[in-house]
Amino acid sequence: MLREAHVVIVGLGLMGASLGYDLRGHCRQVTGLVRRPESVTEALDNGCVDQATTDPAAALPDADLVILATPVRVLLRQIADFGPMLKSGAVLTDMGSTKAEICRALQAAPAHVQVIGGHPMCGKEQSGLAAAEPGLYRDCTYVLCPLPRTADASHRLMLELVLHIGARPLVLDPHRHDRLVAAISHLPYVVSSALVAYVAAVGEQDAQVWEVAASGFRDTSRVAASEVKVMLDILLTNRPAVLAAIDDYQARLVELRELLERSDEAGLRKRLEISAKARKAWQKDN
Amino acid sequence: MLREAHVVIVGLGLMGASLGYDLRGHCRQVTGLVRRPESVTEALDNGCVDQATTDPAAALPDADLVILATPVRVLLRQIADFGPMLKSGAVLTDMGSTKAEICRALQAAPAHVQVIGGHPMCGKEQSGLAAAEPGLYRDCTYVLCPLPRTADASHRLMLELVLHIGARPLVLDPHRHDRLVAAISHLPYVVSSALVAYVAAVGEQDAQVWEVAASGFRDTSRVAASEVKVMLDILLTNRPAVLAAIDDYQARLVELRELLERSDEAGLRKRLEISAKARKAWQKDN
Repeated sequence: MLREAHVVIVGLGLMGASLGYDLRGHCRQVTGLVRRPESVTEALDNGCVDQATTDPAAALPDADLVILATPVRVLLRQIADFGPMLKSGAVLTDMGSTKAEICRALQAAPAHVQVIGGHPMCGKEQSGLAAAEPGLYRDCTYVLCPLPRTADASHRLMLELVLHIGARPLVLDPHRHDRLVAAISHLPYVVSSALVAYVAAVGEQDAQVWEVAASGFRDTSRVAASEVKVMLDILLTNRPAVLAAIDDYQARLVELRELLERSDEAGLRKRLEISAKARKAWQKDN
Repeated sequence: MLREAHVVIVGLGLMGASLGYDLRGHCRQVTGLVRRPESVTEALDNGCVDQATTDPAAALPDADLVILATPVRVLLRQIADFGPMLKSGAVLTDMGSTKAEICRALQAAPAHVQVIGGHPMCGKEQSGLAAAEPGLYRDCTYVLCPLPRTADASHRLMLELVLHIGARPLVLDPHRHDRLVAAISHLPYVVSSALVAYVAAVGEQDAQVWEVAASGFRDTSRVAASEVKVMLDILLTNRPAVLAAIDDYQARLVELRELLERSDEAGLRKRLEISAKARKAWQKDN
């Protein structure tokens, strides 16, 4: 039961601190485990957790549920470091944006620890504790990746948490998750970053380009401003799926380019209509 | 003087009708010239113009200022058709998203007509009269392309209009305009449309992709839902600049792809940081 659990959130950035706000008062205790001493004060001042510490040995042994909310490659190390410090039957989960490599690491955790992968599909451009807010997870899709070794009770605890924060649980195989998020999250980031790189180069020749940039550029380029440290971990731990997505995407782009080069109006209209229709159909549900 | 002018707006979609709302009551008369009889009723019911008609011969001879707010290739025809119907000294302008081809057409208008190109850099996804609203142009950049034959008084009348609707006038050479908007508007549309085409293809294999799509995909793909008829005209009348932009953009994308393939973390970080920084710097001004 969530209300009887001592929950330890590792990392109090946007995701971890927002989760703290939603859980505090609904669990036996919510503890934040952070790297920097300043973060302890900041977390307590903001009230996103009941307790905060920089000492894993103080936070972890009593934990019933440990949620890693750090960048992917940091949490990969934390799975290895923290697993042995947990009590028997404690549940260890993560909020990482890639799942195959993380689930391999969870699989290798000590047998006395319960493990289950997780990925809440939400966020915003701003990062850090200051950007955290209650209700961040409301109506977002929260992917869960139970492993063969995950007990039903641990799976149920995570479902309870996901429902409590107002998110929609979705159970996915880690590899399938990684292919899907490569398409709708990691590829858009790469595409957007390349677009900004191009426009920045144009801007070096003619600064007026920034003056005429309007809502189309604003939207298409927004994710390029995401935190590089976080995105780099994501790309590097989902490399094969992202590379495949870039290649398939490029083929679509080349197709549009060739239709335009040939002034093939009918062919171009057909392709653009398919995309416009698909985007509008999805929009209806959002 | 704008307040003494009879303004005729040709086409009462999002742009034309929004302009009507802002001008009505501030000019001698605002008339809408539309194609379909139903649009006359709709325009009068919505109150975006004082008068509306489907008959060019009724609207144009008395006009002091004619503003073409139709898709680019429609307005190219209208410049040729309507020019001879205007009275001496009447100002003919347009709101088209490409400028070189349009300014060539304006240059060829009868000598008794005053001509000046225009492009307000704003919009929203929805189109049509129903989406129109007062204040649409507030704080947007409004590009003006005066030709050598444009009289100072005509240029001043357009500046007065741009300032009246709360926009920022920006005088640009038509070719320079087309290169810049290829980079920050037409390329983002192509990039976004190719992205949706790719995700739609993934969705045919695994419909779950739409379930995990979140804010990153939403923003990056938004412009793909733009009206195809309008965008097709834009791409086809700005073909060389759009093709060049696609090529330069692709080179950036390939560069990111190769860094990721080699797991060149330092190289990848450097490129991603440049884009994130450029995007954040622009954001500050917006």
